Amino acid sequence: MDVNQIATKINQEIAALQYGQHPPELYEPIRYMMSLGGKRLRPVLTLLATSLYTDDWQRYAKPALAVEVFHNFTLMHDDIMDAAPLRRGKPTVHTQWNNNVAILSGDVMLVNAYELLLELPAQQLAQVIRRFNRCAAEVCEGQQLDMNFEKQPGVTEEDYLEMIRLKTAALLGFSLELGGLMVGADHTDTTLLYELGESIGIGFQLKDDLLDVFGEQAKVGKQVGGDIMANKKTFLLIKALQEAQEQDLEELTYWLNQPSFVPEEKVKAITAIYERLDIRQIAENKMNEYFALGMFCLDRLHANTAKKEALKQFIEQIIAREN
Amino acid sequence: MDVNQIATKINQEIAALQYGQHPPELYEPIRYMMSLGGKRLRPVLTLLATSLYTDDWQRYAKPALAVEVFHNFTLMHDDIMDAAPLRRGKPTVHTQWNNNVAILSGDVMLVNAYELLLELPAQQLAQVIRRFNRCAAEVCEGQQLDMNFEKQPGVTEEDYLEMIRLKTAALLGFSLELGGLMVGADHTDTTLLYELGESIGIGFQLKDDLLDVFGEQAKVGKQVGGDIMANKKTFLLIKALQEAQEQDLEELTYWLNQPSFVPEEKVKAITAIYERLDIRQIAENKMNEYFALGMFCLDRLHANTAKKEALKQFIEQIIAREN
Repeated sequence: MDVNQIATKINQEIAALQYGQHPPELYEPIRYMMSLGGKRLRPVLTLLATSLYTDDWQRYAKPALAVEVFHNFTLMHDDIMDAAPLRRGKPTVHTQWNNNVAILSGDVMLVNAYELLLELPAQQLAQVIRRFNRCAAEVCEGQQLDMNFEKQPGVTEEDYLEMIRLKTAALLGFSLELGGLMVGADHTDTTLLYELGESIGIGFQLKDDLLDVFGEQAKVGKQVGGDIMANKKTFLLIKALQEAQEQDLEELTYWLNQPSFVPEEKVKAITAIYERLDIRQIAENKMNEYFALGMFCLDRLHANTAKKEALKQFIEQIIAREN
Repeated sequence: MDVNQIATKINQEIAALQYGQHPPELYEPIRYMMSLGGKRLRPVLTLLATSLYTDDWQRYAKPALAVEVFHNFTLMHDDIMDAAPLRRGKPTVHTQWNNNVAILSGDVMLVNAYELLLELPAQQLAQVIRRFNRCAAEVCEGQQLDMNFEKQPGVTEEDYLEMIRLKTAALLGFSLELGGLMVGADHTDTTLLYELGESIGIGFQLKDDLLDVFGEQAKVGKQVGGDIMANKKTFLLIKALQEAQEQDLEELTYWLNQPSFVPEEKVKAITAIYERLDIRQIAENKMNEYFALGMFCLDRLHANTAKKEALKQFIEQIIAREN
């Protein structure tokens, strides 16, 4: 099992994908979106899971792309909903074309994801599609909750963890589970694979929340404090609102309600409140809890110890990343 | 085979459908959309096709709903793209909620359509989903072409027929084909069922184009001349632009380019041009060609003559409708 070999194979398969030709307004945005790059983390995880059980993982590369195409479909529609101008430094589809094109191209991408799953043998199809459907609905539920939270007072830690489980972690769970399902791993293992993905998915999101505030600008590659400036309800803010009292609560509320402010001042003030309330440590503990839970699932898989170790190392690498 | 019995069963199954609960912004619009009613033509056609081959058609009602849920998904997204305020006299989903809700609820509806197909036995699934995927992509292609046509000069009769084949007829084709696929009808018959649906689908759209101009307001139930007022590129207008010469062409172009006008005057003038150019007859001939092609497919099905006759009568009833 070699992660680089898997990533290379995934990128080759993506480059070879045929989405359709006519009308170009429908298919060009799909090619554009898929060409923006990224780490292809989801299908790489799928094939890493597959390679736990078979050396012949190469033949599963095409159906593994279903999770990457699905992921990019959600990004295309999310970018409309979030009115995001840029994605990986390039104009988003709805900016480059228009909203209608982004809606309709996204719809076809979702259909394309199902088409990729049809590469699987008939006897696996019903189970894989049933699990994929559940995951797809959960990702939509998570996106809706995320939008709701913007205007919703009193979002709790529990609400937030459930939202990121749905929006982010469910697809990482399914990506790993798919790897097991494709090679006929037993139910215990496919469940453990799902829980591994779900746990590290929640951990990754908590890490993102932490990096936004405590990351080094040069390494993170985006402006530190973006979430703070936007009043984004991250784990850190929710926890701080829960923990803060008197002076701290007053100051936090003040900054959240300022219609205009000097960005650096707001970021500095809220970061200082986080520090005083030990929010960084609380969030890191929570994150490490989820990573540990994931590793516990990985340990219990009925697979070759050396191969499990390789998957573990790959996940630890992603955990250690600074962007 | 009793069409009313089939329609009753379809409505019962729709009423019993569970889409999900939380968050309500995601699932309430689906229930709302599905409760707006309509003739449920597509799943009724599916079960009518099924009943050509088996008396036990009732057990296929749930997977047949996939085509109705898919159809309503396309309406929910189309209404955003067309900025349509009303659907069956009620506010559209993006009007009642907002665009983001309509995008995301629609996405989940598409997932729900696939979930309904999972009711089918494993050995049929790959084939059914492959055909469904093709159909779903074609419907999106048709919608994109329809939007393109608004700004595209020189749309030909051939372009138009291809657009309505994709946007409207492909799903009617698949609806009938699905009925055959579910009961294991042979490839000749499932192909004929598809072609039957595709042909009458094109015929229905041509009939819609005709009714907009030549229908009786009371029977049609919507304002006569709506397409003319909106410069909609229907079969009639495309044909008239192709046939008109000198005085007629000049007058037609005049009305198409008037930024403001008295609606009745424009409708009257363009209708008169259609009459002079015999466009009504040309369109009716074309429509009848497609209906005849459909009936020719129906005749060739390897099914019981009495049952084929019942399906034929049902289709003739829809053809004879005035709205």
